[in-house]
Amino acid sequence: MEAKQVLIIGGGVLGPKVACRLKRLRPDWEVTLVDQQEEIASSTCGIPHYLAGDVAELEGLKTASFHMLRTPEFFENAKEVNIKNRTQALSIDRRAQRVRVRHLASGREEDLPYDKLVLATGRRPQALEVPGAHLPGVTAVVNLEQAQVVKEGISRGEIGRAVVVGATPAGCELAAAVSDLWGVETALLEPGSQVLPERLDPPLAMMVHQHLQEKGVEVFLEDAVQEIRPGESGQALEVVTSHRRLPADLVLVALGAEPNSDLAVQAGLTVSPQGGIVVNQRLQTSDPQIYAGGGCVENLQLITGKPAYLPEPSLAHRQGRVIGTNVAGEFATFPGLTGSFAFKVFDLAVSGTGLHLEAARREGLDAAAALVVQQDHAHFYPVQELVYLHLVVDRQTRRLLGAQGVCHNGDALVGRINSIAALLLHKGTIEDLSNLEMAYSPPYGTALDIVNTAANTAENIVTGRNRSIDLAEFQHLFLDTRDKAVCLDVRGAANAAPFMAHFGERWLNIPQETLKHRFDEVPRDKPLILICNAGMRSYEALRQLQAQGFDNAVGLQGGVAALKKAGLLDLG
Amino acid sequence: MEAKQVLIIGGGVLGPKVACRLKRLRPDWEVTLVDQQEEIASSTCGIPHYLAGDVAELEGLKTASFHMLRTPEFFENAKEVNIKNRTQALSIDRRAQRVRVRHLASGREEDLPYDKLVLATGRRPQALEVPGAHLPGVTAVVNLEQAQVVKEGISRGEIGRAVVVGATPAGCELAAAVSDLWGVETALLEPGSQVLPERLDPPLAMMVHQHLQEKGVEVFLEDAVQEIRPGESGQALEVVTSHRRLPADLVLVALGAEPNSDLAVQAGLTVSPQGGIVVNQRLQTSDPQIYAGGGCVENLQLITGKPAYLPEPSLAHRQGRVIGTNVAGEFATFPGLTGSFAFKVFDLAVSGTGLHLEAARREGLDAAAALVVQQDHAHFYPVQELVYLHLVVDRQTRRLLGAQGVCHNGDALVGRINSIAALLLHKGTIEDLSNLEMAYSPPYGTALDIVNTAANTAENIVTGRNRSIDLAEFQHLFLDTRDKAVCLDVRGAANAAPFMAHFGERWLNIPQETLKHRFDEVPRDKPLILICNAGMRSYEALRQLQAQGFDNAVGLQGGVAALKKAGLLDLG
Repeated sequence: MEAKQVLIIGGGVLGPKVACRLKRLRPDWEVTLVDQQEEIASSTCGIPHYLAGDVAELEGLKTASFHMLRTPEFFENAKEVNIKNRTQALSIDRRAQRVRVRHLASGREEDLPYDKLVLATGRRPQALEVPGAHLPGVTAVVNLEQAQVVKEGISRGEIGRAVVVGATPAGCELAAAVSDLWGVETALLEPGSQVLPERLDPPLAMMVHQHLQEKGVEVFLEDAVQEIRPGESGQALEVVTSHRRLPADLVLVALGAEPNSDLAVQAGLTVSPQGGIVVNQRLQTSDPQIYAGGGCVENLQLITGKPAYLPEPSLAHRQGRVIGTNVAGEFATFPGLTGSFAFKVFDLAVSGTGLHLEAARREGLDAAAALVVQQDHAHFYPVQELVYLHLVVDRQTRRLLGAQGVCHNGDALVGRINSIAALLLHKGTIEDLSNLEMAYSPPYGTALDIVNTAANTAENIVTGRNRSIDLAEFQHLFLDTRDKAVCLDVRGAANAAPFMAHFGERWLNIPQETLKHRFDEVPRDKPLILICNAGMRSYEALRQLQAQGFDNAVGLQGGVAALKKAGLLDLG
Repeated sequence: MEAKQVLIIGGGVLGPKVACRLKRLRPDWEVTLVDQQEEIASSTCGIPHYLAGDVAELEGLKTASFHMLRTPEFFENAKEVNIKNRTQALSIDRRAQRVRVRHLASGREEDLPYDKLVLATGRRPQALEVPGAHLPGVTAVVNLEQAQVVKEGISRGEIGRAVVVGATPAGCELAAAVSDLWGVETALLEPGSQVLPERLDPPLAMMVHQHLQEKGVEVFLEDAVQEIRPGESGQALEVVTSHRRLPADLVLVALGAEPNSDLAVQAGLTVSPQGGIVVNQRLQTSDPQIYAGGGCVENLQLITGKPAYLPEPSLAHRQGRVIGTNVAGEFATFPGLTGSFAFKVFDLAVSGTGLHLEAARREGLDAAAALVVQQDHAHFYPVQELVYLHLVVDRQTRRLLGAQGVCHNGDALVGRINSIAALLLHKGTIEDLSNLEMAYSPPYGTALDIVNTAANTAENIVTGRNRSIDLAEFQHLFLDTRDKAVCLDVRGAANAAPFMAHFGERWLNIPQETLKHRFDEVPRDKPLILICNAGMRSYEALRQLQAQGFDNAVGLQGGVAALKKAGLLDLG
């Protein structure tokens, strides 16, 4: 094959990956990468961890494994890729196959020819569009320069109060970061009705919310910024929301990302209404000489079969390789994505894949969810954490739709989410997950893993045997409403005692192992919520009551463990 | 449906699981469980962790989650299962549908009728068949009584030296357990040519071997016990092997397990030549009224499509549910298994799934393997461990065949093995794994996860681009042979220096980023082994050399990291 010229616009994650893969396949091709920044291939995903102090030096985010510094010179020498940094791509002439660029240092412009062009222009933060959004002290933190400015300001003691706008994953991470290490008084504002909308269903969102609050972050829901005003003294600001005024020395904007696709639009490539460049499975744009991937493209969501925008840095790594292969003239496809994610909020790991319940229902699916709570390691092993897992399934086809979880052992949680993601790739079912062969040893798992338990619970729910309610329903049915439902606690008397003392006759106690002798004590005339530690014994009791003709009973998913974790009820 | 009588023989893992599932589905059926032991549903998988002191009390292995003690009374009261413990099943009369049992306390015999019978008779340890195998102090450790006797003996200071027979998973765990906490001088004897035969390929087996030796366990390979003799003073023994005589106060036999299927054989059920009860996908034996699962049955190995015996405790949990569902008259299948496993040797986690390379080749598959070494967490994150992962693929179909790994972060390793196992369930390919959407956050993963990297490396190997050798080949080609191959270290000079000092002109150094200017220094006349830290930069260099017409170069899989871990070469 004749040697070719390949031009890549963008030096974030995807661009360098394409360049490296391509040079390994076609060492004699000329590969040029253009980027506006000085630095390329920085690990911007590490920014919250740099702010939180877990990553001590900014330099750490510029290295590859085994301490190779990813400078432009490194790419030139080790990878034989021509790097034109501090160079802005201005426009694409598709007919002539060349890109107009400006060298930012000199202001000089030139045309760079290409045989194949790769758009790796990435994502950009969604702007906060209110008066005052451009004041000093109001910033997104999406590149290393911004991160350095913020960290230096905090470490000089200039920041006493911070407001984070948007309870997105980045917003929650940033709130935790500035609050945790630095003791900055931090408020987190979210216009939606829960933290992490579009990521978590309410039961898990409540748990993250509670964790943020326990750690000292003030969380305000259904509260949107209306204006940011300069405060009375110099740098200090005032954030005016629909409900309150918050003084702040720093306002961090974390409203999410959008595709950076201006060049593609100008060049007349097909771009979705939401701004994502449209690509086929080989990651070619509507111009077959031009490829695109990562944060600037729209992807096929494998569960819905519809386009979706989910810009994760790891996605760009995988798509970069596919593009490198295809540009080289070989064949690779990117099938689409399930939407896996993970992040850390203080010491709580949050992770998920696929659709959450609300998204599934919006798609018109007859979806159901099971919240299960179980140890990550054998219950008799000394080191263990509870995993809270919310599994979403389709009642009709029994297909798995998605899962989300929280746990203080992030490795354990993420491993389980990834196992479910692998099943989603092949349209796995509840039965697949029930039988999924999780490698077991007491220090690393439980004999029946939580993913198996979740599948079994989901199966019991879709067959109608396990009639149950979630935390939000419990709040509505029992905590917010005084005279309707009664709780039947099927744990031992000692566990139930503080709840009985608190709720009086609204909280009954019949240990499950004595239930078979005490059916006549169970009320039939009002809604009955069965409660145990994590939802297993209450299901046992539910089946016993159903066999006795009780039709007024439901179980609480996740039991007292879930109630406590969500901060709804913590009586001992 | 008419109420039925169900009889279950065996109170290990599977039997109680069947009973509980069945009672939840059919609360009005009469379910009886028979077992010879006093205790039922003990967590025998916890025995090595009890011996090692991680589990302080034996009681811990008798409880369920949330501290419920799994006594016979618990099953009677909470689960409404009739428990007949200390009761031995003697024979099955299939025509009359009844089982003859003997109550061990009284010696009384009776016939128990059944509509459906479940055989949950489990596995038993393979016997050591040499003279002296029945001497006091020679024991398997597969039940709680044996564990207690061994632990009490050690804690009384009676055991100075132990010999473990068989470098099986249990053998390695037991050797680590008695050696670690108690400082017992421990030797591990294995008749095969590596530790963990049938579990690990040589590169990873070398790593576990090295770890055992570093921690003070003496490992003897290709050495079989021929006789055990009473020693000169009372309890002490002498283990006579093909090569040596080892004094021992305790001999632990860990040769693996075999199906406990005598009852099934007596009853004329179909049993495989290896002794596993043959069952269909609904886990019915050749008599449709009799079901069997867990350690006493043979299963379908999903990768080979052939029968296999792989008795893991977690398998029994999953199969128990399937049997419970089917016995209840509903429908469930167990599709087969991939063979996932995990265990802990000192502080090293070992886990795998599917076929190892040697097993794949025995099956006649054109299999290839990739050893990759990569961090579990982002390289810039402060807490991280290296994962060593060996991926096995089929060159012809590009199908994934299996994977094994070792890592000091067991949660991280096991999560990755489980993700691969999930892909194996649906005959996943290299491309599936390359694109597998691993949830990423710096504290819990790397932007391109090691499983993605392993798939990419495997793809480069099967396409013929990545010509590479494994640790065993390196040992043969370079360490054991003085005048043939030369190593070209493509890391920095400081890294290479101690190796150059040690090997002289057999170890060259050209940092990869300077290679493009120094091709004339690279020898063309002898086999050349490219080496870097973990195998990535040496692949980069390999591609550069191939483009220059070098056909004498191969890369070392896993690089210096793998060499060190395997104890082959540790020079700094």
